[in-house]
Amino acid sequence: TKEDFDLAAIYVSDAQYNRNIFFDTSPQAVRLYLLYNHWFLKVLLYFFILVDLSLAVFEEPAVFPLPIWATMLVELLCLLVFTIRLVHYAKVIPRDKFWKDPKNICIIVILMLTLADMIIYGALKATNYYALRWSRVLRPLLLVNVTEGRQLRRAFRSIRNALPQIFYVFLLFMFSVLIFSLMALKLLGKRGLKTIDGAPYFTNYLEIVFDLYVLVTTANSPDVMMPAYNASFLFAIFFIMYILINTYIFMSVFLAVVYNNYKKYLKEEVRQLVRAKRHKMVRAFAVLQEQREEGGGPVVTQANWNQVVRLVQPDISNAHRELLWSVCDDNNQGSIGKVAFVQLADLLNIEVITLKSRPHPFHSVCPAFYLSAPSRLLCRMVQHRAFVIVYDIIILVNAIFIGLDEENPMIANSEWVFLALYLLEILLKLYVFEPRAFFSRHSFWNWFDTIIVISALIATIVNSAMKSSGGYTSRQILDIVFILRVLRLIRVVDSIKRFRTIINTLIRIGPAILTFGQLIIVVYYVFAMVGMELFKGKVKFYEKDSGNPAGAYCGNPLLQGTDFAKLNYCKNNFNNVVSSFILLVELTVVNQWHVLSSGFAAVTHVSARIFFILFHILVVIVIINIFVAFVLEAFFVEY
Amino acid sequence: TKEDFDLAAIYVSDAQYNRNIFFDTSPQAVRLYLLYNHWFLKVLLYFFILVDLSLAVFEEPAVFPLPIWATMLVELLCLLVFTIRLVHYAKVIPRDKFWKDPKNICIIVILMLTLADMIIYGALKATNYYALRWSRVLRPLLLVNVTEGRQLRRAFRSIRNALPQIFYVFLLFMFSVLIFSLMALKLLGKRGLKTIDGAPYFTNYLEIVFDLYVLVTTANSPDVMMPAYNASFLFAIFFIMYILINTYIFMSVFLAVVYNNYKKYLKEEVRQLVRAKRHKMVRAFAVLQEQREEGGGPVVTQANWNQVVRLVQPDISNAHRELLWSVCDDNNQGSIGKVAFVQLADLLNIEVITLKSRPHPFHSVCPAFYLSAPSRLLCRMVQHRAFVIVYDIIILVNAIFIGLDEENPMIANSEWVFLALYLLEILLKLYVFEPRAFFSRHSFWNWFDTIIVISALIATIVNSAMKSSGGYTSRQILDIVFILRVLRLIRVVDSIKRFRTIINTLIRIGPAILTFGQLIIVVYYVFAMVGMELFKGKVKFYEKDSGNPAGAYCGNPLLQGTDFAKLNYCKNNFNNVVSSFILLVELTVVNQWHVLSSGFAAVTHVSARIFFILFHILVVIVIINIFVAFVLEAFFVEY
Ligand code: NA
Repeated sequence: TKEDFDLAAIYVSDAQYNRNIFFDTSPQAVRLYLLYNHWFLKVLLYFFILVDLSLAVFEEPAVFPLPIWATMLVELLCLLVFTIRLVHYAKVIPRDKFWKDPKNICIIVILMLTLADMIIYGALKATNYYALRWSRVLRPLLLVNVTEGRQLRRAFRSIRNALPQIFYVFLLFMFSVLIFSLMALKLLGKRGLKTIDGAPYFTNYLEIVFDLYVLVTTANSPDVMMPAYNASFLFAIFFIMYILINTYIFMSVFLAVVYNNYKKYLKEEVRQLVRAKRHKMVRAFAVLQEQREEGGGPVVTQANWNQVVRLVQPDISNAHRELLWSVCDDNNQGSIGKVAFVQLADLLNIEVITLKSRPHPFHSVCPAFYLSAPSRLLCRMVQHRAFVIVYDIIILVNAIFIGLDEENPMIANSEWVFLALYLLEILLKLYVFEPRAFFSRHSFWNWFDTIIVISALIATIVNSAMKSSGGYTSRQILDIVFILRVLRLIRVVDSIKRFRTIINTLIRIGPAILTFGQLIIVVYYVFAMVGMELFKGKVKFYEKDSGNPAGAYCGNPLLQGTDFAKLNYCKNNFNNVVSSFILLVELTVVNQWHVLSSGFAAVTHVSARIFFILFHILVVIVIINIFVAFVLEAFFVEY
Repeated sequence: TKEDFDLAAIYVSDAQYNRNIFFDTSPQAVRLYLLYNHWFLKVLLYFFILVDLSLAVFEEPAVFPLPIWATMLVELLCLLVFTIRLVHYAKVIPRDKFWKDPKNICIIVILMLTLADMIIYGALKATNYYALRWSRVLRPLLLVNVTEGRQLRRAFRSIRNALPQIFYVFLLFMFSVLIFSLMALKLLGKRGLKTIDGAPYFTNYLEIVFDLYVLVTTANSPDVMMPAYNASFLFAIFFIMYILINTYIFMSVFLAVVYNNYKKYLKEEVRQLVRAKRHKMVRAFAVLQEQREEGGGPVVTQANWNQVVRLVQPDISNAHRELLWSVCDDNNQGSIGKVAFVQLADLLNIEVITLKSRPHPFHSVCPAFYLSAPSRLLCRMVQHRAFVIVYDIIILVNAIFIGLDEENPMIANSEWVFLALYLLEILLKLYVFEPRAFFSRHSFWNWFDTIIVISALIATIVNSAMKSSGGYTSRQILDIVFILRVLRLIRVVDSIKRFRTIINTLIRIGPAILTFGQLIIVVYYVFAMVGMELFKGKVKFYEKDSGNPAGAYCGNPLLQGTDFAKLNYCKNNFNNVVSSFILLVELTVVNQWHVLSSGFAAVTHVSARIFFILFHILVVIVIINIFVAFVLEAFFVEY
């Protein structure tokens, strides 16, 4: 029946995309489940999550302030969408499964807490009390707990599994830092040394611990050592020992522990995925199976198989489907058993590039012209190795011209020549190669080239039109023109085979980096929300031409004379979500993080450093190491 | 015959220690080869290499200047020793093998070049010309090319094998840096922005390339971005993209490539070692074999086997040797075949900890007392878990007392109490445990404890004796007392099982880190010698109390106003080999390396930066990554 085919198709599709949802098998639930998996609803969901997250841009402290009722209204709409999606999900799977799944409970709790916070906040604001939107830290957790956040949940699980081991190494590492600090206090505290600012050097134990913790991140090397080193070179040995043990050995051990757990966990997850996939395919088989002959096992006929594959992947070509069938039914019996059927999910995931040698349209339209001697010569020239080399040289010459001063009219006009040459290249290639093959899904560089060159053409025309009409040049358009011009040069990389291998590896690990990007956004968002509540408005940035003398100390007298103000870090603040994110990136890069944290400690309290140390431990020691482990593993598999 | 046994013993010993020397098998050569492998000659060789390397301390620019004739005489002595060792080696192995081995040719070339350099240098100095001791960069190569430098050669070979792949990734990375620099020039160069010093921002292409290269190392983050970020937050996106691609992705790819090659190469080397080992054992078998019975294969009798094992390892106990034999001759036939004999080299490498339950000396001397009820109670108390906990608490209390001010007489006296408690602990343990077992080779912490406590006792007594006699306290002795006191606290780590696992792993990778240490010393030494010739005397350090105003700009007016002088980096110079090494460590740590390199560029020429960039590429990108790869691999195997 139609319903059986639907059910089987769902099982196959779930197996193919590694979905792990125990849906209700009643026809109505199956229809709802098909709807639930529709790409449009998924896109809609992520769109509303994005809207919900970007509300931070418009809420106090805002980049673009909006009235409270406006942001609240949008947030209510988001909550409504999430609730509908959840209710839909509840209709799809059995009731007991729904309430046993922690991710559903999480979403319900998040929705309720958010609603409660909005009501409290609104009431307090209406009565002019101080109010805090604390539920904003929960927003990124939606990204983790929606059904589609499978990969992200896996990443968080792998972190959670690594935590106990990381924790023990961390304790040992902190013990080492504390012991070294004690030694530093005893060796250097009584020597009357001074730092470069004339402050007493290494006399306070907690300050030493902080300084030496910063030294682990290398951010205050060699400054922290200089007063002692100036007194005697023997003290340098102390610091070198410290760096060797704590920076090099312990940090490598952290990477080793994270990587080790990551690999172990990954293997376990892959094993489970394979098991679950098999299980689902077996269920699909059970729905479709027929008893063909006496004594033989149950089979699925080619007709039924075709019907299911057509339901699972409507866009698959007949030739491709027949190919898949011939792989499954290798004895040409017209039906396949369980073992052959189970492969289907993996077969569907294999991308078959069908190299159809379609003739060029010109060949069909006017073969006499297209097959004439000059035309064939042209084709051979364009396909020749020399053509690539000529264009590589053109790109290099172009690079030099870009580097030269564009005020020079000769050079400004040369841009048109280069644009024409690049356009010519694309047209020639389109003349030689079949256009649909040229713009196939896997021809990354052809797409790249065409898009960049055509954008550059449009931007350059717009730019010179504006220039010649009003004599006015838009800085933004000029910037875009420059960026496009430079991006064009990247193409040269594709001509060198070794580079292509490396770049292909990097492109292939792209999707997984996307998961990692979500992970980092979740953590950043939480820290940004907390940071904004703790530090908003404490450090202000004044435009240089505002002439306000408070700009020299970021509008906060407590910062006078600090490195933070001296280095002009005023724009590194938590005054809105954008500057918070940029600041968190700077903290991830680690360099000068002690200056940043000491700045915020100066305007609040010394314990503010805890916020920055926590960020360092969580993001740099744990998450960045996961990223490195992940690139390593991807590279070992792909390269 | 005796000679046959010697020959067989050498084969087994070579197999055991993975020596790969094709020595002459004539009796005379075998005797010379035995002598060549004597531990004393090896120690002597390394002693003279050390002397040769440390000559840099006494040569111009010297830490402790010695007249030229003195250092020259010592160096000649060293050269003589190396020559004798080489001649000895030449006598041991066949002539054609000797001349085919690149390491011997290397040593001969090094010796001849050094001699030539010494003669030229001496002649030039005698006639008061400018002279350069360029052959000093060759000295560390001896460490690589002596017969015993096997591990080091392997490390260099693994680097050389990884170089082609690293090179391609590096090219792509540099291409990316150059493209980003071009974009930065176009986007930011014409905006009239100023750096914090008021200099024009991002207007010179080569300066931008340097700045962005430094940004890859994170050393000038976020300073390099601040002028652009202050102009518009959109530019921050440019820098974040740059850091993401070049710092995170490319640096991880470097690690991946290095690690991948390291693993591949290591596997190949291990395979070769196993083959070579087998080959040598087969030759040893061929020397010892006898035809026992008709039709059976050749065998080695237990008597002969015993004789060889006794020659290979004279210190092995009879019980241990019998155990090894019973492993080989598992059928108890009194003789073993080839397959069983080949295992011997690996069996000898297995450390057998013979747990002899020897009675305590007191038990033998006066059993009545040692076995009395109070004595047994004491023993049970010391072995109880609570005893460990009590001493852990004592250590923690001790830590707090150390942290407090030692000027307070109560606290100063408490030190005696703690010392007495620690001594008591050691004595009690010696009372309970058999002393030879307590101080066995594997009881790291017992040795550690005893040495630290006894040294602390001696130092404290010396210190208070000096204090009470002349009222004078030696700062050095006090420093040693402090260090020992703090080191005592480390012992607490051993009580926690999880920590013990991690520390044991670290201790086990110790020997391999030693090889790595030699590698880094070779590279540092070469860079130190070159750096000293390029930069000696350009930057001077003045003691703070000298009152010389030139101290503010390191005695070089060219440094006035530079960050180098402002940050008081004057002691980071190439004026002698010790400060050069410390400076190179600072460069390895990377932070502020751009300030250091710009300082040396200011006092010489901007191209001096090349020296520092080369150091960064070689040491940080290649060697430190090998170190990390190596710790990762060791950790995966051991943990
Ligand atoms: Na740094």
